Amino acid sequence: MTAKPAGIRDVAALAGVSPTTVSHVLNETPHTRVSEETADRVRSAAAELDYRPNRLARGLRTQASDMVGLLTEEIAATPHAGRIILGAQEEATRRNLTLAIINSELRQDPAISADPVQAFLDRHVDGVIYATVYHDEIIAPENLKSRPAVLIGARDADGLIPAVLPDETAGAASVVGMLVARGHRHIGFAASAEDVPATRGRLVGYEAAMADARLDDSALIEYGAPDARGGYEATLRLIDAGATAVFCYNDRMAIGAYRAAAERGRAIPEDLSVVGFDDQAPIPDSLYPALTTVTLPHYEMGAWAVETLAALIDGQGQHSLIAAHPTVLPCTVAERDSVAPPPATR
Amino acid sequence: MTAKPAGIRDVAALAGVSPTTVSHVLNETPHTRVSEETADRVRSAAAELDYRPNRLARGLRTQASDMVGLLTEEIAATPHAGRIILGAQEEATRRNLTLAIINSELRQDPAISADPVQAFLDRHVDGVIYATVYHDEIIAPENLKSRPAVLIGARDADGLIPAVLPDETAGAASVVGMLVARGHRHIGFAASAEDVPATRGRLVGYEAAMADARLDDSALIEYGAPDARGGYEATLRLIDAGATAVFCYNDRMAIGAYRAAAERGRAIPEDLSVVGFDDQAPIPDSLYPALTTVTLPHYEMGAWAVETLAALIDGQGQHSLIAAHPTVLPCTVAERDSVAPPPATR
Repeated sequence: MTAKPAGIRDVAALAGVSPTTVSHVLNETPHTRVSEETADRVRSAAAELDYRPNRLARGLRTQASDMVGLLTEEIAATPHAGRIILGAQEEATRRNLTLAIINSELRQDPAISADPVQAFLDRHVDGVIYATVYHDEIIAPENLKSRPAVLIGARDADGLIPAVLPDETAGAASVVGMLVARGHRHIGFAASAEDVPATRGRLVGYEAAMADARLDDSALIEYGAPDARGGYEATLRLIDAGATAVFCYNDRMAIGAYRAAAERGRAIPEDLSVVGFDDQAPIPDSLYPALTTVTLPHYEMGAWAVETLAALIDGQGQHSLIAAHPTVLPCTVAERDSVAPPPATR
Repeated sequence: MTAKPAGIRDVAALAGVSPTTVSHVLNETPHTRVSEETADRVRSAAAELDYRPNRLARGLRTQASDMVGLLTEEIAATPHAGRIILGAQEEATRRNLTLAIINSELRQDPAISADPVQAFLDRHVDGVIYATVYHDEIIAPENLKSRPAVLIGARDADGLIPAVLPDETAGAASVVGMLVARGHRHIGFAASAEDVPATRGRLVGYEAAMADARLDDSALIEYGAPDARGGYEATLRLIDAGATAVFCYNDRMAIGAYRAAAERGRAIPEDLSVVGFDDQAPIPDSLYPALTTVTLPHYEMGAWAVETLAALIDGQGQHSLIAAHPTVLPCTVAERDSVAPPPATR
């Protein structure tokens, strides 16, 4: 349907140089001497003929495919996978890399399966990103160690693979800090009974910030399932225990907190402040009043992963140094309309 | 960190054949004569040496990259993109294809940008999938016509590119049918004021099914924004107009319908039945009672796209025949707990 595309010989003829020179200029081959004037002439000729270098041929020569692979656990079940993919893809495009995706099954144990990694290696990806949200640490298969790799959301048990994590603890502490600043002293935490890294990090952050504010009150922690029903049940108990603010482990629990407040006749935020975590669309803007919550750095983690991987591929990354200290990205409070000073102080 | 991988010559030596024969067997090259016994010996040797054919070299020879590209509009903003990607990726893996992803900006006009398509073509993808949820029809750029391509969620204005769509109309009609079967006669529709294909298809399905049941009642259609506030306002008006059931354009509007029912003192489902559309996690299971809604075939559309693309790449697809008749996949009712017979009939 389209005319035969221009070849490297056509460009060479138009620019009056050899095909080798065209190749050196367009592939920016290191350690070759071509004058800037000649290079300009080659680029103009290539543009005029709409010539595009054959990436397959280039890949064979350089042994680089300019493709990076993203393995995500349970892409369809994780509400945030979209932003990890978007951050990784946009950073890949900026670096002229292709992002390939494979979904990996959610695993109970922390040992990553070698199979999806091998599928990427068979396709000669230059590096692999593994993204998980359910494990503190993962045990990498041998084949993941044979190629540049980075982790999103978990540490490498062997400390060899660079990793990036959200700062769940500081994020939770900043919520308590904000509520204390508004005058709250009875701040309940609707905690998740599920054993995942986010559960522990957020609870630690809540407890540390409460202790910092000299508000230790273990009676104001209630556990529930990390969903609307769990949040409903925990919030009923927290209201009855005297909480003027309820900090929910996640936005889904906050949905239930709103129902509990309505049943107890407490208006949000006048009688009860509620804060969530995750900024999981469409929940915060679907609640009335809109939910104040905490944003996770998923886009940023995806972009960091590609940036770090590109440095490792180029041999610029100090692999072991990066891996020994996982990079931690901040979680920030997204203020909406569900927080006000406690009733007694107004 | 790993030993030098086995090459094709190592396999040839172990099997006692030429490297060409190894290539023919492992690449399943058509029109070559190798006895089944020899082929077995080659495969055994390859397995023993853990030899994997160089896909880059093979791609250069066959001009096939075994990679297909998925372009999605606004991947992070579309709640269903995850299931489209999962369906496409799992089908790609079954066919030994790699799925590469690029996010395309959401466009106001139906003309697809040539740039992200070109980014895939530069990488020698064997075919391109374009997924959108905001347009009835798209106008394909010239470069998309130079390679096998399929569309998800929209028709090609020129009728050249095969497309797959959800059957919004039949999905909406089946909700009305279910409510009529439960005894409802005053079935309100909280319609979206937004101009996207889903809005029109669902409204047409509601009106057609109401007419079929001889329940034409244009007074029971109320328009609102396609979010919780829009659903809240529309449902208040529908309750006041006498509706015993409210069918919401989407699940986000249903969140507002629950609030409107609570404010009017109507228990769900005893006093008011509510149905959504989209089955958008985590909404249906986060509402109390859990929301009966309609599931969209996103996984199936992603899988269909890769299957159809693979047929076109292999030259088996009857391109124009497929394109002339977009494939329509069913939307099915997911029954939960928000529907009961109307109060008068119990």
